[in-house]
Amino acid sequence: MAVKHSDLEKAINTLVTEFHAAAGDNGSTLKSNEFKSLLSSQLPNLVKGVNDDQLMGDLMKKLNIKDSEGITFKEFWGLIQQLATSQHGLTSRDKSAKSCQIL
Amino acid sequence: MAVKHSDLEKAINTLVTEFHAAAGDNGSTLKSNEFKSLLSSQLPNLVKGVNDDQLMGDLMKKLNIKDSEGITFKEFWGLIQQLATSQHGLTSRDKSAKSCQIL
Repeated sequence: MAVKHSDLEKAINTLVTEFHAAAGDNGSTLKSNEFKSLLSSQLPNLVKGVNDDQLMGDLMKKLNIKDSEGITFKEFWGLIQQLATSQHGLTSRDKSAKSCQIL
Repeated sequence: MAVKHSDLEKAINTLVTEFHAAAGDNGSTLKSNEFKSLLSSQLPNLVKGVNDDQLMGDLMKKLNIKDSEGITFKEFWGLIQQLATSQHGLTSRDKSAKSCQIL
């Protein structure tokens, strides 16, 4: 039986499937280059400086991400949470604001 | 200038805008009935028992949500995080799994 999903359910599903797609066949974690690739292809408006090692280093540090053992869904989620919270803060202040912000 | 957004950016935006839409003109928090309405309209496949006070009470307790002063975006986000993490766990075990799970 086909189940109809709401926009919110589809959004949750997108977050999970994009992480899986980026992880490829590695299983459940992202290598550093896979994480960068995900950010540059999927978060171009929200995360800048993916190709700048210094900025990426700062971002990883800020999110408390250690890529030595692969980036977990939980660590990826920390970034999504921060972006959503910033977006929420922006739209709360100005409900007409539609554009995304830069991290 | 129109900015093109990726699926992941749209997903983040959906999570934020659905919360705002549910909050209506109240500002930045949801009343208890607005939260229930959001769950039943937007998360029908992921959250069951919205009309059962006992189950809702358990859910609110599990998420550490106190609705006396309105449900904040952070508290709503706790639910989204839990749903996404469960979904991630399911799809990690079985990458062919497409259906959503019940909380």
